[in-house]
Amino acid sequence: MRINANRLLTSLTELATIGALPGGGVQRLAFTAEDFQGRNYVAERLRLLGLEPRVDAVGNLFALRPGTDPDAPAVLAGSHTDTVANAGGFDGALGVLAAVEILARLQEVGVETRHSVGLVSFVNEEGVRFMPDMMGSLYVRGDLDPGTLRSIVGTDGTTVGDNLDRLGMAGSDSLIGTPIRAFLELHIEQGPELEGLNLPAGVVTGVQGLRWMVVRLKGHSNHAGTTPMAKRQDAGLVAGQVTTSVRKLARDIPGLRGTVGRVTLRPNLINVIPSEATLTVDLRHPDQNRLDDAVAKMKAGILRFAADEGVACEISETASAPAIEFDREVIEDIKAGMDSLGLEPHSLVSGAGHDAQIMATHCPAAMVFVRSRDGVSHNPREFTSDADCVTGADILLQAVLQLASG
Amino acid sequence: MRINANRLLTSLTELATIGALPGGGVQRLAFTAEDFQGRNYVAERLRLLGLEPRVDAVGNLFALRPGTDPDAPAVLAGSHTDTVANAGGFDGALGVLAAVEILARLQEVGVETRHSVGLVSFVNEEGVRFMPDMMGSLYVRGDLDPGTLRSIVGTDGTTVGDNLDRLGMAGSDSLIGTPIRAFLELHIEQGPELEGLNLPAGVVTGVQGLRWMVVRLKGHSNHAGTTPMAKRQDAGLVAGQVTTSVRKLARDIPGLRGTVGRVTLRPNLINVIPSEATLTVDLRHPDQNRLDDAVAKMKAGILRFAADEGVACEISETASAPAIEFDREVIEDIKAGMDSLGLEPHSLVSGAGHDAQIMATHCPAAMVFVRSRDGVSHNPREFTSDADCVTGADILLQAVLQLASG
Repeated sequence: MRINANRLLTSLTELATIGALPGGGVQRLAFTAEDFQGRNYVAERLRLLGLEPRVDAVGNLFALRPGTDPDAPAVLAGSHTDTVANAGGFDGALGVLAAVEILARLQEVGVETRHSVGLVSFVNEEGVRFMPDMMGSLYVRGDLDPGTLRSIVGTDGTTVGDNLDRLGMAGSDSLIGTPIRAFLELHIEQGPELEGLNLPAGVVTGVQGLRWMVVRLKGHSNHAGTTPMAKRQDAGLVAGQVTTSVRKLARDIPGLRGTVGRVTLRPNLINVIPSEATLTVDLRHPDQNRLDDAVAKMKAGILRFAADEGVACEISETASAPAIEFDREVIEDIKAGMDSLGLEPHSLVSGAGHDAQIMATHCPAAMVFVRSRDGVSHNPREFTSDADCVTGADILLQAVLQLASG
Repeated sequence: MRINANRLLTSLTELATIGALPGGGVQRLAFTAEDFQGRNYVAERLRLLGLEPRVDAVGNLFALRPGTDPDAPAVLAGSHTDTVANAGGFDGALGVLAAVEILARLQEVGVETRHSVGLVSFVNEEGVRFMPDMMGSLYVRGDLDPGTLRSIVGTDGTTVGDNLDRLGMAGSDSLIGTPIRAFLELHIEQGPELEGLNLPAGVVTGVQGLRWMVVRLKGHSNHAGTTPMAKRQDAGLVAGQVTTSVRKLARDIPGLRGTVGRVTLRPNLINVIPSEATLTVDLRHPDQNRLDDAVAKMKAGILRFAADEGVACEISETASAPAIEFDREVIEDIKAGMDSLGLEPHSLVSGAGHDAQIMATHCPAAMVFVRSRDGVSHNPREFTSDADCVTGADILLQAVLQLASG
């Protein structure tokens, strides 16, 4: 069985008209009218398939197509339809619409499955207006109670609750407590690996762990012309040394990704030695032990550079996400699906965060990635070919059928 | 002969009341009412000594005490009374008031000198409101004609001419064409060398050359999590490598001072690889050849770092001042003066810019530095002890007497 390619691609085009930007690209920030409209487009598609769209207290949308065994846990597929600002049309949308398409095929062919098969479209995966990101899946996993969640204040000063009420976006159903056999998420890669290997798709075996540090350095501001080199306490120099050493660490620890994205100096004048520097360090690795090792080495290095220059140093960790390994059996089912479609079952690790990594500690989970042109995402230039979108959805369909029958 | 210590110190205190700031420190930005008042305080002191204060077309104040030989070129001492914003009371002021005090001693003792002895207080040495700095001495050297100079637009949109006219600060006399035997400038060190050596004063043998570069780097913005290390074009990394290499260069080339004072990244976000970086490099050396060598090495290094990362690079030189060696004979006269006062004739090089370096290519010139507490200047915390101020003025007096008699 294969998905209906035209129907999937048409739905991608239709969803991309909601929140479409004049210059190309889309914008459906979580808990805005556009986000609500995008979610309702999916709900309407479910209704047309004869499936009841259900909504929970935080706005997550889900639907279940019953299996023959009422005691068998559900096989769910999905992703999210909210976007970042000035986004593309594939991130999140493809995973949700592929799940709709799978349900559509099951309905029209009249396939009976032992397990029920369902769709879930999580709210606020992106975390642009309201933190934390992956809010909907965190709620389903049980990390956030509705009261706490509703009181979260966003960048515009309103709360999640204000927006849910204003839009009428919350419902009274719940996925919490529903036994889940597996959660599957199809997503664009957002990186260049598949394109580099000339492969349309791959199975995602895990998500990199992430640790963020903010480093605050305090030295001494002084005249660039009159201060001898040996008497300097140059916070900017230490920032430069940290930046350089992050790249060196990434060379020494295979698989490590390290980035200094933000550097701010004070007073930031051409002829004054910087007295203050603030910089960020973003470290990621698929293996938690290696990530922790990298952070420890990085911290020791930062303290050494600062001490050598006589600069005071304060390191705070501002975010941390554990490295996730997806479920082996689900990975094997996806690989078998790829194999049956004549595709090379290439494995890769996700560099970005996804709802599936939250669900992975709640139920068996894994992901399918499809090739991103130039590795670009979160941008109107984000692009995945029609053929690759269809291939990804077909892989998802094979894996769902396998998991729902067993 | 010695100067009158009390009179010198009283005049320093009195001048510091003009433009005094509530929290300490002073502010007499060039071509403001405070600057004009400061200059007029000096003019009034000259008048009380029976010397005629004269003013040129750009507001420079000078006075000459005739010598016995009308054909002998003048020996001048001076500095400036304008300040930076939020300044201290010694930078510039000490050099001008010491010159006033020397004239006062010559007048009251009735010393006859072969050469005439004079004072000059240059306008706009600091260059805060109006560029270039050292404007008054550049004018006397003949680098700027009055029309060009008057049309220079300041940070507030007014011109130098507007301000000269508003204040009535310009005159019709001129130092241009006056033969000058020597120009001597007493100044605070603005650095920590004398304090570190526990010496009250030193003779300045030259001024470091300076070259400023602005480096603009353009790489490629991308996701910190999904972009493999080998595929990055990280403009921020190159900025860090340049910063680190400036310090290394200063280790490799003795006497070099190198500073990266300004770094700006874009988009400057924790999880995005910086696509753009702008940074400044300030290099100084007392030896012009070594300075030029350092700049060449620096440029080659920057281009190599940028090329290795696939980052586009544009280097522009925004300022350059040649290394200056002061006149050997004037230096020897200052050393002889120090020796006669029982002081160790320590030589040092100026890290900051001064009117004397402009005058040095116009007439023989040299400087005397006195110890700065903590090397601080351009700040209300700027401080030189009474004893050191007096010592500096006494050295200046000995040198002037020597030069004016020979």
